[in-house]
Amino acid sequence: MNTGKTAANILIHEVGPRDGLQMESGVVPLEKKETWLRGLMESGVDIVQVGSFVHPVKVPQMADTDELFRRLTTDKRSKTVLSGLALNEKGLERGLACGVEMFCLGVSASETHSRKNTGMGTDEAARRIIAAAKSALAAGKKVQISVQSAFGCGFEGPIPEERVLRIVRAYVEAGLRNVSLADTAGHAHPAQVERLFGEMFRLDPAIEAACHFHNTYGLGMANIFAALRAGVSSFETSFAGLGGCPFTKMAAGNVATEDLVHVLQLEGLRRDIDLEKLIGIARGVAEHFGRDMQGFVYRTGPIPVAAKTA
Amino acid sequence: MNTGKTAANILIHEVGPRDGLQMESGVVPLEKKETWLRGLMESGVDIVQVGSFVHPVKVPQMADTDELFRRLTTDKRSKTVLSGLALNEKGLERGLACGVEMFCLGVSASETHSRKNTGMGTDEAARRIIAAAKSALAAGKKVQISVQSAFGCGFEGPIPEERVLRIVRAYVEAGLRNVSLADTAGHAHPAQVERLFGEMFRLDPAIEAACHFHNTYGLGMANIFAALRAGVSSFETSFAGLGGCPFTKMAAGNVATEDLVHVLQLEGLRRDIDLEKLIGIARGVAEHFGRDMQGFVYRTGPIPVAAKTA
Repeated sequence: MNTGKTAANILIHEVGPRDGLQMESGVVPLEKKETWLRGLMESGVDIVQVGSFVHPVKVPQMADTDELFRRLTTDKRSKTVLSGLALNEKGLERGLACGVEMFCLGVSASETHSRKNTGMGTDEAARRIIAAAKSALAAGKKVQISVQSAFGCGFEGPIPEERVLRIVRAYVEAGLRNVSLADTAGHAHPAQVERLFGEMFRLDPAIEAACHFHNTYGLGMANIFAALRAGVSSFETSFAGLGGCPFTKMAAGNVATEDLVHVLQLEGLRRDIDLEKLIGIARGVAEHFGRDMQGFVYRTGPIPVAAKTA
Repeated sequence: MNTGKTAANILIHEVGPRDGLQMESGVVPLEKKETWLRGLMESGVDIVQVGSFVHPVKVPQMADTDELFRRLTTDKRSKTVLSGLALNEKGLERGLACGVEMFCLGVSASETHSRKNTGMGTDEAARRIIAAAKSALAAGKKVQISVQSAFGCGFEGPIPEERVLRIVRAYVEAGLRNVSLADTAGHAHPAQVERLFGEMFRLDPAIEAACHFHNTYGLGMANIFAALRAGVSSFETSFAGLGGCPFTKMAAGNVATEDLVHVLQLEGLRRDIDLEKLIGIARGVAEHFGRDMQGFVYRTGPIPVAAKTA
């Protein structure tokens, strides 16, 4: 891949425990979640998103986020960074109290999505989330700040790129340079991905860019490769391909973590990650839910590299 | 996309009626096939592969290929080229008798796959298929000649690139320049796709390159975009994502035609193709088989471009 990146620059951010499990109608028991999370950490993925800090009545699937952080950070030896999604100041407080290592915060570039999601328009939401992000930085935490619906919105349709870039500009001016563009609805396509990340790097080449693609229209993996080409270094994926967004009308899962690790390893990258462990966890997920998940490699296993007979 | 190609250069070759339906356990009735084929022709895709000329006892799903060609070529007004797959001289004869417009012929780069498929090793199969291809050209037909298992084999694992290039060299020396590389088992990954097509164009920049990817490991669409970047102009896809290969141990469907047309149209390309018609046909396929197919866009519809509210 002509990305100008070295293998060491490519980070896997596992977001399934949050973006995936919040979409399931049933609540996964705490112990089961803890087992999956510890397995994901052992696999060697770089960042694992444990959960989000939302109201437990609104999203009961995330009610145990604080407890999970407490358990996972006690006597922690894994190098995997544990991230948590905070939607507001209250979430930040909860996260600071329970041991979050990286805060993920964000704003939707879609005015409608932002209002449905937070009750605020994009500009007001951005001011508040930037303030929260600066508090997290000041508390010595890692911070990743995102633009949701950056490539299109299930409510509004196309999102002008300038809306996205205006938000990114505000982030950069506030000293927040770990920026994720999230394709919440799955509308992104490769040329758009390369163009928008290219514009972002023109704003500030020092940005550490992350991406998050939903596979609604079958384009997730193609978009990841477009992002790689553009110089994006961090990839948000979900084990077994879990995922969705409760605030848009339609969204399929994220690209499966094990599918991405599989192809990166084919290309000679990130061979330090334990793919077999990831596949095992995804198989456990399919068994737990009793249905086919959206990932591919957990079903097939990795490409067999048999002895050559000719 | 930085492909150096113009929209007019990108061709869609619908192979589902052959590569897809040969894999179904049931035989689709002739009239149903004819309806699907006429719909595909009306959608404006460039080439439609009607079927293959194989022994009707071995592959009963393809027993009606000759009759379909006769029906579709009678009073034909569509610009869509009708292709047929011939495995040998006998198939060529049958195709010449029933009105094939473009012959697809090929050889597997995997010795094991070639022997299981044809009873001959790669070199012998290549000599015979090149002779058949030259006869088809001499008869005034279009000819596309392929290398199967070009990116890896379900039996043998990795296939050395030199094996593929040696076959391509023989094709070019025989004056056969419409060359398809087929990822029969779905082992291709984007860096490999760019590299191998790049090597092929270095052999002869005048090659008209086609590609055929199976989505076994979730990489089909990413590989298509890699091929586009490399300068490939013809894309073999299957309506509804039908597809597989009876001669490899495991192969998921092709990338769905409607999924590819959808993303090309997002990128401003091939807006002349009737996407809604393709989606309607794919929905009919899912209804006929009574199961979810592997395509995405037939389920979701195209990305909605709603009126902007902000």
